This record gives sequence, structure tokens and C-alpha cells, in this order.
Amino acid sequence: MTAYLDNNATTIVDPKVKELMDPYFCEYYGNPSSLHAFGAKPRVALADAMDNLYSAFGADDEDDILMTCGATESNNHVIRSAYYDFILPTGKNHIITSSVEHPSILSACKWLETMGVEVTYLPVTEEGGIKFETVRDSITPNTSLVSIMWANNETGMIFPIKEIASLCKEKGILFHTDATQAIGKIKVNFREAGVDMASFAAHKFHGPKGVGGLYLRAGIKLMPLMFGGEQMGGKRAGTLNVPGIIGMGLAAKLANDSLDYELKEVRAMRDELEDAILKIPDTFVIGSKDNRVPNTILVSIKGVEGEAMLWDLNKNGIAASTGSACASESLEANPIIVAIGADKELAHTGIRFSLSRFTTKDEIAHVKNVLPGAVARLRSISSGYDYKG
Amino acid sequence: MTAYLDNNATTIVDPKVKELMDPYFCEYYGNPSSLHAFGAKPRVALADAMDNLYSAFGADDEDDILMTCGATESNNHVIRSAYYDFILPTGKNHIITSSVEHPSILSACKWLETMGVEVTYLPVTEEGGIKFETVRDSITPNTSLVSIMWANNETGMIFPIKEIASLCKEKGILFHTDATQAIGKIKVNFREAGVDMASFAAHKFHGPKGVGGLYLRAGIKLMPLMFGGEQMGGKRAGTLNVPGIIGMGLAAKLANDSLDYELKEVRAMRDELEDAILKIPDTFVIGSKDNRVPNTILVSIKGVEGEAMLWDLNKNGIAASTGSACASESLEANPIIVAIGADKELAHTGIRFSLSRFTTKDEIAHVKNVLPGAVARLRSISSGYDYKG
Repeated sequence: MTAYLDNNATTIVDPKVKELMDPYFCEYYGNPSSLHAFGAKPRVALADAMDNLYSAFGADDEDDILMTCGATESNNHVIRSAYYDFILPTGKNHIITSSVEHPSILSACKWLETMGVEVTYLPVTEEGGIKFETVRDSITPNTSLVSIMWANNETGMIFPIKEIASLCKEKGILFHTDATQAIGKIKVNFREAGVDMASFAAHKFHGPKGVGGLYLRAGIKLMPLMFGGEQMGGKRAGTLNVPGIIGMGLAAKLANDSLDYELKEVRAMRDELEDAILKIPDTFVIGSKDNRVPNTILVSIKGVEGEAMLWDLNKNGIAASTGSACASESLEANPIIVAIGADKELAHTGIRFSLSRFTTKDEIAHVKNVLPGAVARLRSISSGYDYKG
Repeated sequence: MTAYLDNNATTIVDPKVKELMDPYFCEYYGNPSSLHAFGAKPRVALADAMDNLYSAFGADDEDDILMTCGATESNNHVIRSAYYDFILPTGKNHIITSSVEHPSILSACKWLETMGVEVTYLPVTEEGGIKFETVRDSITPNTSLVSIMWANNETGMIFPIKEIASLCKEKGILFHTDATQAIGKIKVNFREAGVDMASFAAHKFHGPKGVGGLYLRAGIKLMPLMFGGEQMGGKRAGTLNVPGIIGMGLAAKLANDSLDYELKEVRAMRDELEDAILKIPDTFVIGSKDNRVPNTILVSIKGVEGEAMLWDLNKNGIAASTGSACASESLEANPIIVAIGADKELAHTGIRFSLSRFTTKDEIAHVKNVLPGAVARLRSISSGYDYKG
């Protein structure tokens, strides 16, 4: 028996998505920029995919959704081009982000700092949340850009995007959100939320790896991160990843269509697992259930090293995570548990379970079955935990 | 009957490549950065793919091959990071490229110019070639980087990469080559050629779209174009495109294994078509057969608009091109015919036929059958051609 509960790292490609992509490798393989018939079929399918994306994410016809190779590219595009497009021309030398953004935002901001830009990294609450007031109070007359993620990859906490967008609009500040961990879990409508720019990656919502998008509200112009051909009106060059984009289009539609299931059934399975975990003594979950995406649990299990737990779970066929996969090649403290101010010991005890619409009740039952024994075993060999089992 | 002769724009994915990729969408979908078993299978397959790439392209173990989303990313990475890594620290404010590079190099160089860098765009000969002496004579004490493509996308002309690499090494100048149009057509061995950096894209050698690579000789350090997670040692962030990279690995091996076939059989078909075209009066082909990749013909047919010819061919199921697909959404003069110094009228008469190892003798026969009639018809309605038919 296996259980895949690492959907915030990546998701299974929906077989319907795979099926739609399939003919675009060896049959309809033409370059969509070509003028002949081999380019025509991909061109039509790409138009369908774009329709799906605009519709699923609430973009207006005049808005742009640039096709990228993933959220890391989209995030880098925003932060790096912001320097040339918003900061240099205006002299407004200050941007605001949070301390719990994805590494692609945080590292790009570190680069901005080397260019002389002042970056404010907002703290999170004990719940792992971001208060609207914290954002508001950090704005200065020099602030040109705010970049706050829609939902956090580790805790699943949802941040007050609509309120921040409205505040930024009022103050004439551009607002970008990394929506990667929100899509497919809660409703994401860019126009309704009022964001200027938004990043996403298909592989987080049952689309393929290697493709993502960057939403730009009408009127927002960004210097390309990749100069070159005239694809996408010169805003992002490079031969289009035809099967990938076609897959992402359908994945977006399916994610949107599945939101009710996500909010009800996936959440019910998540809550069931969470309740079972919390019955084990000395465990705590970060963030209230209500302000969290419905698929995520970040739990701290006192006296149990996250890496050791991962290993025990893995031996039982269960995939979980100690933190962002993008940082998991280095076995460091969970950054979010550090960010909420927990002590260093606790920061090594984080385990994240993340479900999806492909998660089954059998998988949840399997994890519930394995977990208490694993905790007891690991605590029995832990020097730092007074084992009472 | 159809004939796909636009392989310099993009190629069919080899069905063997597709087959190898297939299970990594819905079965082995784990994130290779994850520590659990779902990440292990992709990790092993990625290691195999990297082995194939290193072996096919002659990279040493200590060299890097960064996985990118295509040659446009690789080219932008080199040119943009060169500014921060080679130009700013040394004050060597001059780079050399050619006037016939891919738009991703040319546009990135235009950006460099806005940053105050002096860029020399080398001319080509009447044959569409680049003389070694032209490169040598353009070097100044301020030159920090030379970027010259291995083979040209339009003419197929092969440039003297080994000689330029050797010169650059002698002068202490970094040398980058865009090898996109050489791979799969002629032998490409990065170490043997002595290049410092090289770009390529899988979809030009029967791999999937949306994935490519950037070769960096041991010791070459480039600032990331995409900051973020610790994938590839922090040199290029973002969740790895697992199926894409696995596909590219096999595609590289197959391309390498097929070089004999390419040089003999594909070339024979190309030559047969070329000879037939040249029997039509007032046609000329750019570049000698011997200094050209074996799959490409760029022909100028006097009195025939390239776009009109494309349309006639397309009606007969034949896919060709008037120029780079990356520029073909705009119906402008063929840039290479302009670059070799032909008059403006001639610059609109270019038609490129590009074959691959999937091209059949039947396809060539079909084109040979259709072309003379199409030329006669289009010349008969051409105001600028004295029709003698």
C-alpha cells in the first residue's frame, strides 16, 4: 500500500490531461509559429488552452497570460524586470515581500538587494499568517512593488490577497502574487482579486512539469526575461511548449471544475487525518483549519526528527515532506517553523502532508494506521524526548 | 501525400523518446528533489538522461550541463549573465557576435547595448559563412565574450567553431556557441571543439519542446537567470521537467547514433532535391554543399515571393519555411538573404527546405513533383518576372 501525500511538491498529471497532450509529440508536432498546415493544428489547440486558462483564472481578454516554464521563471521575471521597469525609472527603491515566500522570490529579492534595492521581508504570525496591517504599515513613499504569495506552500495558510491588492491599487503600488499553491485548492480569480501580476505552475494542479504562466493585468508591461523571437508578442520568446501548454489549459479547467470536491471531500479527508494526528500527544498543527487551503497539514511532532519520520513513513509507502521540495535537497530546519518563531529543536520536527483530488480514503486510512506506531518508535529512540509509551 | 521539410523549425518527437517519457506523467510523477520513493524513480531516470547528454555531446564529468526550457533560455542566460559576470567586473565592455544569430542572441545583445556594452555584429560572406579572419580582426583588448552559432538555422552553413574557440582561449576571451542547429546534423563535441559554453534545444533533434540545455565548461560560473531552489546546485532553479529531460537524454543519444545515417542518407536526399531545384532556371542555393549541415537548403527562386510559394506548397501538403519560425509570425524579408547582401527583391524569395532522419524518399519525390509546376504558376502571375514558360 502506498499513499502519496506530497501534492504541494508536485502532483500526478491527470490522465485526461495526458491524453489530450499525447498526439502533440509525434503527430501534430509542427511549430505553431509556422505558416503551414503542420503548424495549424497546434495553433488551434493552443488557442483552446488559452481560453481555458483565461476562463479558469478570471483574466480579461485584454490581460496577458505569458506561457513560461514554471512559477520559478514567472517569479524571476517579475522581480528581475521590476528592477528595470518600476524601480530604476521611478527611483522608488523599496519593495515588500514576506519572509515565507518560495525560494524563487526570496533569492531574486536577494539579488535585488545586491543592486541596491531595499527589501522588506514581512514576518508571519504564530499561525503562519500575514496580517493585512503588517503589509499596510510597511509601505513607504518609496515602495514600488509588493509581492505576497496567495497561499503558503508549507502551511497552506491563505494570505489576504484581495485586501493587499486593493491597498496597493489605492497607493499606486504594483502588486504581484505567487498563486502557485492556491490554484486547484481555492478559487483563484485574478481580476476579481485585483492583482496586477500572478505566477503559477501547471505541475501543482495535475498538469505537466516544465510549464507555467505569468498573468499580467492589461497595461502592465514587463521587460522580457527571455529576449528573442516574436512568440507572445515578443513578451516571452522561445518555441512554445505545445503539449505542455495544451496540458496546462485542460488542467486549469479541471482544477477549477473540481473546487467543490476539493473544498468538501479533500478537506474532509484532510481534517480526518489532522484530527487523528492531533490525538497523538505533543503534536501541534500550524494554522487554523479555516484560513488554510483544504489539502495541507504542517504538523510538528515533539521529539521526532522530521527526516527520521519521513524515512519511517517512506518505508511504509507513504510520501510526505519536511518542507519545500525546492529546498529539500539540503536537510535544514523547516523555514516556516523558524519564521513563526519556534525554537530550533521544534524547527526540525515539521512534517507536511498535502492531499489532492486523487487522494483516496484508503490512503488516509493507511497513514492513520502507520503514524502512531512510527511516532512511538521514533520517540523511544529520541534522546530529547521523555518517552512515556 | 504530405512532406514535412521544416525540421529546422521543429522536429517530430522520436516515438522511442515519447515511449520513454510516457510513464513519468501519471506513474512516476514524483518530484525528483523529494526524499521519498516517489522521487527516486525519476531521480534515477534523470541520471541516465544526464549520462546520455554528457556522452553524446562530449562533456567532461566536471563540466556542467544545465537543464533549461530551451535554447532561447540558454542563450539569454549566457548573454544576460555575461553582463554581470564578465563585463562589469573586468570593465571589458565589448562582445562579438554575428549578424545571423538566432533572434534570442540578437535581441539579448540589443539589451546589452542599452546597458552600454559595445556589440560587434560580424557580417557573413556571400555564401552565408563566417570567416575566421573576420572574427580574429574584430577582437579588441576590451573583448570579453564571443558568441557565434555552430550552424546557421536558415542556410545550414557551418561556422569555424573549433578555430574560433582556440583563438578565444589564446586571447583569454570566453566563447559561447549556439549549437541548436548543429546537433543531430553533424558531430557536436563540446570538449573537443574547446568551447566554454553552448546552447541547445531538444525539439530540434527529435526530443520534446520546452526543454534544452546549457553546457558550461568546468570552471565557468554564470549568475543564474532564474534564482530559487537548489536544483542543479543553485545554478538553475525550478522543479525539473522530468519527462522532458528524460526525453532529451534519449533524443541526444539517438541523434548521435544517427549521425552516419544523417551524413549519408539524409544528405543524399537533400542533394537529390537540391539538384532538382537547381534545374529550374533562375534559382540559386546559398552556401556550398560541403560547408553546410546535410539537411538544409535555402533557395532563392527569382520572381517568386516566398510567402506565395509556401502557400502553394502547403496546398500540396508540403511544409517548408521562408525563414526562422521564431521570426515567421512577421512576414518580413529573409534576414540571412539580407545579410549576405542580396537586393531587397531577392530577399523575399527565400524558401528553406530542412530534412531529418524521418524524411522519406517518397516525400522528396513528392516535392520534386510539385515544385516545377508551382514555380511556373507563380512566375506566370509575377509582375516582376519575364515569364518564358
